[in-house]
Amino acid sequence: MAAQTLPVTMSGSPNPHRIVIIGGGFGGLHAARALRKAPATVTLIDRRNFHLFQPLLYQVATGGLSPADIASPLRAILRKQANTRVLMAEVTGIDTAARRVHMGERTVPYDTLIVAAGGQTRYFGHDDWQRYAPGLKSIEDALAIRARIFTAFERAEQSDSDSERSRLLTFVVIGGGPTGGELAGALGEIARYTLKRDYRNIDPASARILLLEAGPRILATMPPSLSRKAQRSLERLGVTVRTGCHVRSVDRTGVDLECGDRLERIEAGTVLWAAGVRASDLARSLVGENTALLDRAGRIRVQPDLTVPGHPEIFVIGDMADFSHQTGEPLPGIAPVAISQARFAARVIRTRLAGTAPPARYRYFDRGMLATIGRAAAVAHWGPIRLSGYPAWLLWLFVHLMKLVEFENRVLVFVQWAWNYFTRSRGARLITGPFSDRPY
Amino acid sequence: MAAQTLPVTMSGSPNPHRIVIIGGGFGGLHAARALRKAPATVTLIDRRNFHLFQPLLYQVATGGLSPADIASPLRAILRKQANTRVLMAEVTGIDTAARRVHMGERTVPYDTLIVAAGGQTRYFGHDDWQRYAPGLKSIEDALAIRARIFTAFERAEQSDSDSERSRLLTFVVIGGGPTGGELAGALGEIARYTLKRDYRNIDPASARILLLEAGPRILATMPPSLSRKAQRSLERLGVTVRTGCHVRSVDRTGVDLECGDRLERIEAGTVLWAAGVRASDLARSLVGENTALLDRAGRIRVQPDLTVPGHPEIFVIGDMADFSHQTGEPLPGIAPVAISQARFAARVIRTRLAGTAPPARYRYFDRGMLATIGRAAAVAHWGPIRLSGYPAWLLWLFVHLMKLVEFENRVLVFVQWAWNYFTRSRGARLITGPFSDRPY
Repeated sequence: MAAQTLPVTMSGSPNPHRIVIIGGGFGGLHAARALRKAPATVTLIDRRNFHLFQPLLYQVATGGLSPADIASPLRAILRKQANTRVLMAEVTGIDTAARRVHMGERTVPYDTLIVAAGGQTRYFGHDDWQRYAPGLKSIEDALAIRARIFTAFERAEQSDSDSERSRLLTFVVIGGGPTGGELAGALGEIARYTLKRDYRNIDPASARILLLEAGPRILATMPPSLSRKAQRSLERLGVTVRTGCHVRSVDRTGVDLECGDRLERIEAGTVLWAAGVRASDLARSLVGENTALLDRAGRIRVQPDLTVPGHPEIFVIGDMADFSHQTGEPLPGIAPVAISQARFAARVIRTRLAGTAPPARYRYFDRGMLATIGRAAAVAHWGPIRLSGYPAWLLWLFVHLMKLVEFENRVLVFVQWAWNYFTRSRGARLITGPFSDRPY
Repeated sequence: MAAQTLPVTMSGSPNPHRIVIIGGGFGGLHAARALRKAPATVTLIDRRNFHLFQPLLYQVATGGLSPADIASPLRAILRKQANTRVLMAEVTGIDTAARRVHMGERTVPYDTLIVAAGGQTRYFGHDDWQRYAPGLKSIEDALAIRARIFTAFERAEQSDSDSERSRLLTFVVIGGGPTGGELAGALGEIARYTLKRDYRNIDPASARILLLEAGPRILATMPPSLSRKAQRSLERLGVTVRTGCHVRSVDRTGVDLECGDRLERIEAGTVLWAAGVRASDLARSLVGENTALLDRAGRIRVQPDLTVPGHPEIFVIGDMADFSHQTGEPLPGIAPVAISQARFAARVIRTRLAGTAPPARYRYFDRGMLATIGRAAAVAHWGPIRLSGYPAWLLWLFVHLMKLVEFENRVLVFVQWAWNYFTRSRGARLITGPFSDRPY
């Protein structure tokens, strides 16, 4: 394809100001929505054609939901927003001097840019582990993890070696944050309940599920009392929680650990990585030589108004932003932060366009933390309020159902949750997709 | 892995007779169910861990449903059937002399074998066309076709060349059978309704959708009056039906046709293949040198009791069987035939095991033909009864909903159909999966 400039002004549009948003996740989508009445043309670029409700991705990975249940076509969401268009394209770079976003050989010019490209799994310099311990960021990741989990049981059923069977029935989740806890809890449910009577040669309930955390406790962003409650809930599902354990290496057949000063080898058929997230590589393209602007996780240290130092026309929000002006620590990489930053950035842009004084400082009002741990158990923390067990789980259900973008998604997820709850079934446990990457 | 014989007798089972079923489609699954009380151990082998409701696969390909909506885990379906086990494995060959099924280096012995491995897309000697014109047999096929269809619109939106845009908005479906008609009808709906206001630079309704049929009319197995009605329904959705057109070649950018004595080139962004099915390659392994037992589509010409000539212990059913004893023509490759053959084979086996006289001849009682064409239109044919339009569509909806194996699937499909019907939306139009095979 020849070099090509995509027209940003839509035919007939009277708005000369061009806003480009990179990323259709929580940050990008909510920024676009908050700009629906702005006197500007808005272009939302994402390499996928859908918005993904990431907090429920672990349920796709564990066979409880289908991808389309937690994804909505970006075009459908933004259809009625006349000043906005959607481009499905992979952004390959940003030319901040020429104010152009590059997508391969094509470019789009901007007057204001919102970068909300999110993050990717972080292996702390061991990218070769990815092959053996996949992370959970995309639908493809989720389907690959789903295939691994259920294939491990299938292979154990057919194995005639005790040691191989026990290896295949060992599941290791690395990282005791919310995603790790949710995955481990779901694995516990699968082994104890979902697959209970499905096999003839193995007892799925004999599966070993290990949740490894390098720090002293799981769910470190929650108060210690809730960490303890979450750990007990996981243990009731048969999950072994190991804190203070660092991963030294991951290979085809298991994991090498360092727990305190003890080295340990765990033979495992399935290893899942939930230990870290780093910002999209686009952050590098944005800061150029000025790498001091990046923190250790590759995020951009933004100004108090979420702009890039020296570039008041560029906002960085969500998982790509290191906003430490409020507490001295970066805000956590969760949906409520991304959404509130999106709304702030949109407000700054609208006031600038209106010629009034924009707000000078972003501030995050804590919307609480929620994490679920298997069936009918969760922990919730909101200011002084702490909930656990069934009430927290009901809250978790309600919040997640209500936050799904489209009504159809809500109905579908609700039907499947109700079904799964009462039958302990998981109808979406299909093994599909390319198998070649399985390390068995 | 070392050579290994899998034990077929399950621990503690008092049944020495070993029945092996290859394939978990309509034939294999219904055979297993019909043998649930047989004094035998039943082993069902499938390379996938789920039963797929193939008649609705085109809805996955066109973004109306998710894979898990039309698939059910085989283990869950057969969980309570104590004499039955499920093996997820790829059958690589059958040793009819030693009475063993090979799965790579592992083998399973049988006393009675039911082969129900189905079919695959048939390119009539042009397997290189597969790359440009994928067929629709598996979930992976459906997701790849879905990605192609919706990517074509995305690329058209971004194209600055009129001819390229018009090529990308041309969709060719090759083969005017039920699958081809359903795909073309769904494409018509997508272009006219689903995507109506989603784009800014293109008008999806301007898409050209061509349904090509080599014979004189579409839905050739239906009475001519219903073919005409189906064609009119398709035309109302903007589909151009071209009969008497043979495909001479398919390449990266389109299709070469021979219509009567005229040659024609159609530039197209998406070409889908629904022109033929042939039996699984396992048929060859089963007949060995005796290739006279195979018909042109690779099916096995079975005996009147569905067994392989010379092998009364081997039954072949469903899409792999050429049963011509009833009408002189092979029975069609549809689910009702596979299911009734499965039940017949199970009955023969049960009577043999009981020592009573087995029925000598299989006979198919016509359960009718049903095909849907887009929104609120279908044709149905059952003996002297012919239905079309809305009543046929309601019948189609009802039959397909009721035939879904699990209640959860029925609820999920019903919710999505209702939603899609009233909103003309298609929530599952995600572009996912490996992209490398796209010929763009």
